[in-house]
Amino acid sequence: MSPPWHAGVLTIFPEMFPGPLGLSLAGKALAEKRWTLDVIDIRNFATDKHRSVDDTPAGGGAGMVMRADIAAAAIDAARAEMPDGTPTLYLSPRGRTLTQERARALAQGPGVILLCGRFEGVDQRVLDARNVEEISIGDYVLSGGELAAQVLIDACVRLIPGVAGNESSLAEESFASGLLEYPHYTRPREWEGRAIPEVLLSGDHKEIAKWRREQAEALTRERRPDLWERYKKP
Amino acid sequence: MSPPWHAGVLTIFPEMFPGPLGLSLAGKALAEKRWTLDVIDIRNFATDKHRSVDDTPAGGGAGMVMRADIAAAAIDAARAEMPDGTPTLYLSPRGRTLTQERARALAQGPGVILLCGRFEGVDQRVLDARNVEEISIGDYVLSGGELAAQVLIDACVRLIPGVAGNESSLAEESFASGLLEYPHYTRPREWEGRAIPEVLLSGDHKEIAKWRREQAEALTRERRPDLWERYKKP
Repeated sequence: MSPPWHAGVLTIFPEMFPGPLGLSLAGKALAEKRWTLDVIDIRNFATDKHRSVDDTPAGGGAGMVMRADIAAAAIDAARAEMPDGTPTLYLSPRGRTLTQERARALAQGPGVILLCGRFEGVDQRVLDARNVEEISIGDYVLSGGELAAQVLIDACVRLIPGVAGNESSLAEESFASGLLEYPHYTRPREWEGRAIPEVLLSGDHKEIAKWRREQAEALTRERRPDLWERYKKP
Repeated sequence: MSPPWHAGVLTIFPEMFPGPLGLSLAGKALAEKRWTLDVIDIRNFATDKHRSVDDTPAGGGAGMVMRADIAAAAIDAARAEMPDGTPTLYLSPRGRTLTQERARALAQGPGVILLCGRFEGVDQRVLDARNVEEISIGDYVLSGGELAAQVLIDACVRLIPGVAGNESSLAEESFASGLLEYPHYTRPREWEGRAIPEVLLSGDHKEIAKWRREQAEALTRERRPDLWERYKKP
C-alpha cells in the first residue's frame, strides 16, 4: 500500500496548524491517517541567535523579504522526507490560481510541500533555484500563506478516496461538471410562506434531474459568464 | 468614535475560531480590539434534543441540507447585534468570487455576518428570504465554509487602517494597481551563484521603479492574461 497523502508545511507560525484542519472532515481523516501533516518551523533554519528569517528588500521599499538561503534550507529538509517530484508550492497572490481541477490533480499525487510567506514575500532566487511553483487561492491579499495553505489542503484532502464518504455527492457539486450547483431544499415543506418547488416533491426523478440541470445552467450563466462560456464550448 | 469592524460568524464548528486569525497580524489586531469577532453556534437554534440543523435534500440525492428555519434564526440573532445594512454573506462556491476590491469595500463597512455551511449546502429559501449574498473565495470546493470565512476576514482585517502598520506596503502589493507584484530580493547579495539584479543595488530610485513596473507587467502578462487585458483598458 502506498503511504497516505502528505502535506509538508513550512511556516514561521507552526502553531496555526492544524487549526481548522484538525476538526470535522479533514480532522477525522487526519486522525484516521488518511493523510499526514508535517509542520516545519522555518525559524529552525535561521543562522543567528535572534532566529531571524527575513531582511530588508534590495532596492528599497516597505516590509521585509524572506531570505533565500533560509527558505531553501527549509525546503530541502521537507523534500528529504518526500518522494521525488512532490510539488513544492509557494502560496502567493502572484501565482496561478487554484482550481478544482488542480486540487484533484494534487490529491491524486503523493502530497504537497507548501511554503507559507509572511512579510512582503520571499526572495525570488529560492523560487527559481528550487523550482517552486507559485499558487494563489484567489485575487485578494492575505496577511500570510498559512490560511491559503489550509484552504489548499482542505480542497485536496476531501478528494482523497474514502474521506468524503459519499463519492456521488462529489460528482454533483460545483465545478464537477463545469457548472455551479443547483439550489437545495429540505424540510419544512413550507417556511415563512415559501414552498419547496413542486417538482422536487413529485418523485419523478427524470423531471427532478432536468430541473436541477436547468437551474445549474441558469445560475452559471447569470453569476459566472466566464464559466458558462467555457462550459458551452465542446 | 465608531465601533470596530465586526465579524459575526455562524457555524456548527465554533471551535474552529479564531484559529489562525488568533495569531500574527489578525490576532494582534483582535487583541487590540481593532476588530471584534463573535462566533455563534448554529446548533443553539436547533429545536430538537439532538440539536440537529440539517435534513435530507428534497428531491433526493446525496448529503444533507441545512434547514431554512434554523439558519434564519441564527442569522436574525446575529443581525440584532449589528448595524442595519451589514452584509450577510454565505460562503459557497456558487457565489460571486471575492476580489481585493470587494475585500476593500467590506473592510470600509461596519463588518460582516458570515454563514458557514457544511454538508451539501443550505436551504435556498433562507438565502432568498433573508437577502443573503453568496460569496466564493475561489473555484474549488472546501469541506465547509469556515476556512473560507477566515480567509475573507483576514483579507478585510489587514486593510483596516492601522492594522498592517505600513500603508505604503499595501499600495504596492498585488492587485492594488491591477498588476501582480514584482519579484523581491534581499541579502545575501549572492546565493548559490545567483546575484540580486544589478539595478536593485544601483541606488537609482527611478531606474528601480521602472524595473519593478516592467517586471510586474511582464509577470501579469505571462501568468494572468485576464488581469492584463483588464489592466490595459483605460
